[in-house]
Amino acid sequence: MRHLMSPLDFSPEELDRLMDLAADIEQNPARYAHSCSGKKLATLFYEPSTRTRLSHEAAMLNLGGSILGFSSADSSSAAKGESVADTIRTISCYADICAMRHPKEGAPMVAAHHSSIPVINAGDGGHQHPTQTLTDLLTIRSLKGHLGNMTIGLCGDLKFGRTVHSLIHALVRYPNIRFVLISPEELRLPGYIRHDVLDKEQVPYQQVVRLEEALPTLDILYMTRVQKERFFNEEDYVRMKDFYILDAAKMKLAREDMFILHPLPRVNEISVEVDADPRAAYFRQAQYGVYIRMALILTLLGIQVEGGKTW
Amino acid sequence: MRHLMSPLDFSPEELDRLMDLAADIEQNPARYAHSCSGKKLATLFYEPSTRTRLSHEAAMLNLGGSILGFSSADSSSAAKGESVADTIRTISCYADICAMRHPKEGAPMVAAHHSSIPVINAGDGGHQHPTQTLTDLLTIRSLKGHLGNMTIGLCGDLKFGRTVHSLIHALVRYPNIRFVLISPEELRLPGYIRHDVLDKEQVPYQQVVRLEEALPTLDILYMTRVQKERFFNEEDYVRMKDFYILDAAKMKLAREDMFILHPLPRVNEISVEVDADPRAAYFRQAQYGVYIRMALILTLLGIQVEGGKTW
Amino acid sequence: MRHLMSPLDFSPEELDRLMDLAADIEQNPARYAHSCSGKKLATLFYEPSTRTRLSHEAAMLNLGGSILGFSSADSSSAAKGESVADTIRTISCYADICAMRHPKEGAPMVAAHHSSIPVINAGDGGHQHPTQTLTDLLTIRSLKGHLGNMTIGLCGDLKFGRTVHSLIHALVRYPNIRFVLISPEELRLPGYIRHDVLDKEQVPYQQVVRLEEALPTLDILYMTRVQKERFFNEEDYVRMKDFYILDAAKMKLAREDMFILHPLPRVNEISVEVDADPRAAYFRQAQYGVYIRMALILTLLGIQVEGGKTW
Repeated sequence: MRHLMSPLDFSPEELDRLMDLAADIEQNPARYAHSCSGKKLATLFYEPSTRTRLSHEAAMLNLGGSILGFSSADSSSAAKGESVADTIRTISCYADICAMRHPKEGAPMVAAHHSSIPVINAGDGGHQHPTQTLTDLLTIRSLKGHLGNMTIGLCGDLKFGRTVHSLIHALVRYPNIRFVLISPEELRLPGYIRHDVLDKEQVPYQQVVRLEEALPTLDILYMTRVQKERFFNEEDYVRMKDFYILDAAKMKLAREDMFILHPLPRVNEISVEVDADPRAAYFRQAQYGVYIRMALILTLLGIQVEGGKTW
Repeated sequence: MRHLMSPLDFSPEELDRLMDLAADIEQNPARYAHSCSGKKLATLFYEPSTRTRLSHEAAMLNLGGSILGFSSADSSSAAKGESVADTIRTISCYADICAMRHPKEGAPMVAAHHSSIPVINAGDGGHQHPTQTLTDLLTIRSLKGHLGNMTIGLCGDLKFGRTVHSLIHALVRYPNIRFVLISPEELRLPGYIRHDVLDKEQVPYQQVVRLEEALPTLDILYMTRVQKERFFNEEDYVRMKDFYILDAAKMKLAREDMFILHPLPRVNEISVEVDADPRAAYFRQAQYGVYIRMALILTLLGIQVEGGKTW
Repeated sequence: MRHLMSPLDFSPEELDRLMDLAADIEQNPARYAHSCSGKKLATLFYEPSTRTRLSHEAAMLNLGGSILGFSSADSSSAAKGESVADTIRTISCYADICAMRHPKEGAPMVAAHHSSIPVINAGDGGHQHPTQTLTDLLTIRSLKGHLGNMTIGLCGDLKFGRTVHSLIHALVRYPNIRFVLISPEELRLPGYIRHDVLDKEQVPYQQVVRLEEALPTLDILYMTRVQKERFFNEEDYVRMKDFYILDAAKMKLAREDMFILHPLPRVNEISVEVDADPRAAYFRQAQYGVYIRMALILTLLGIQVEGGKTW
């Protein structure tokens, strides 16, 4: 039995098969509409995350399965002092697969060790959020047709941004990737990722402070939020905050075939005027998030669909 | 694509077709039992309302569809500062139709503007609650056989009562409607509704303070709650509170073919001894609320049922 | 129409039929997979209980039915002052059967009186939790092959433990049952149960303070938690707390064919090293909890399955 704890759990070849399956689901949804009939997904959300929970639930419902679960810890047995290990052993009696979000790093891993059903890590503290990374990969592959040979701009809080770190780990496995790291100095990508991942894998990158400077060279721009609280002082924040807001004016600097991704929710780092730009792909990304989770559920449950892609 | 923002979104002719469909559903539920198979309803409740949420969910399940969503804002992305516009664009990837309740007036309208799926306004602050009004109309039509030519008593807090205002707007479109407005002076129907709606449409009405006075003339009595906090002083409240409590004694004054409606929940404005009276229709009203929402979901999704009523 | 308020609502013969049905479901789940198609279970949880709620929901989904409901009182109409009687009359319009958990004793009974759908008491304060008792009975019968002729150890807080009291009431109806009551003196089984149930039914029992003393004689050991707050003083707690922790060392004293049950959640009263012991049956018990609830739903809805067990 397989779980999903980290996006690196899958080899690049396995990821290719997973994304092939997701692409077939996108093209032929009716083929998969009853593939999980009689199966149940439990969503165990020890901290609220509507978007992540609903995307898993929509995926299971699209496959003809059912959903049950909880959306916050107050309504769970955790309040009574039950261990994650005990909870998952009980949930294994109630469902065929589960998605767990937990504020503590490693909690889904503990669950996986004691579970008799596949466990999807739907986010554990600041640690991993692998279905977001799978979503990002599928989105890039679907929009560009491939995953290597491109320049990817990562913009915003690169120091604390979990999705950015995870995406870097996943992308360095593809050939000819170049990164442009766009952030204030205070929020640069940590040294251990630059040295142990980028340098070690000989992946070229440059660090820039201004988004304008990076835009003309990019195939993909991955935006994230810069929170005011992250700045050392008010002065720096005021000086730099507009550097990281993408608007129609800045979009004139970008290539016609560049796409903008964002893990959402956004606050103001992408101006709403950009939404109508055909290069804005962040809502399509939410749709790809459903397809990849459908593929993931089928794969972890070991379900082969007649006439569908074979895992 | 159509949304439901206000009960006046539908013309009287369209409402007739909607209610014909609801009546056919009531008579032939099996005919519609799989009509929404593979469709998903998202219930987006930014403030809790069990009754309204469950009635939409029951409607979708009766049609063979699935449900997902959230029942309070704490477990939603709103807490992270996401706009309603962004939320609905994401939800559009997860569901085929949605019902939204929001504490802010106009929020469902904003959602509808940015949505690629039909949006049902399930209540926005003190503004609109159109599925309640559709329920009220279907209930009256089902019980009396028609919607015009009748005297309707509206009792309770007519000043702040959203359901009452909305019902008046909807009913004045039918011929020969007469209203009896039963309330304490402090809680009379606002002048702008009396003048701009009733007078303008030449709909006769009278205002009375005591329920007993009105009862003998009514075809329909629509009860609502009078909250103590609404009174100007304790003295008035004590003097008048029993005027607006419907009990078995007062029911002796009512006609045999009068029906009592109430949007529920009730507190004490209808004595439980009245529940057994065949004229008490408020729980049947809850059942009609499911039928009209089934008809509404089918209509907004543009689903025609083989052998069923055609919209 | 039948409800489930107490485990004693069913005669021993009826319980046999219910457990025969549950056993058939365990053996032939596919036979029952669509038996509740088109039926809806409402879970009305006025206080949170993830395990109990999800076990009912899993049961209904396994039968091909649908689920809706609420998981805490904040998101219910109770906050608006609605009575349980009114709520259930409305819910009767939305669902075919319901499971209610309520902090007030007797609330599910009030609901049953006003309901037009079957009501399952899913726990009312410290009063009853009948589906737990049905689960316990099915577990014992499935593991041992029968329900009479055995020695049952009840360990932990026997004074306040609702599940223990309920299990005693249910088991004394079977022949040749003997109890060993294992608890600190402060937490002994109340006199009214010893006298009015055990003595009256001439069921032999002994009271012991140490678990080791009881273990060698038991066919079933039913563990429950001993809460520190229940002790009269810190000294007693420190002296005795280890008496009631079941570990691998103590398990050496138990018979090879003894089984350990626990209503869960556990905290530390069973050491995790015991989980791997084949006699540890508390997670299997959770699975039996789903089967018995499936049988219960079918029975209360009066659904007969082609080729299945007949109620």
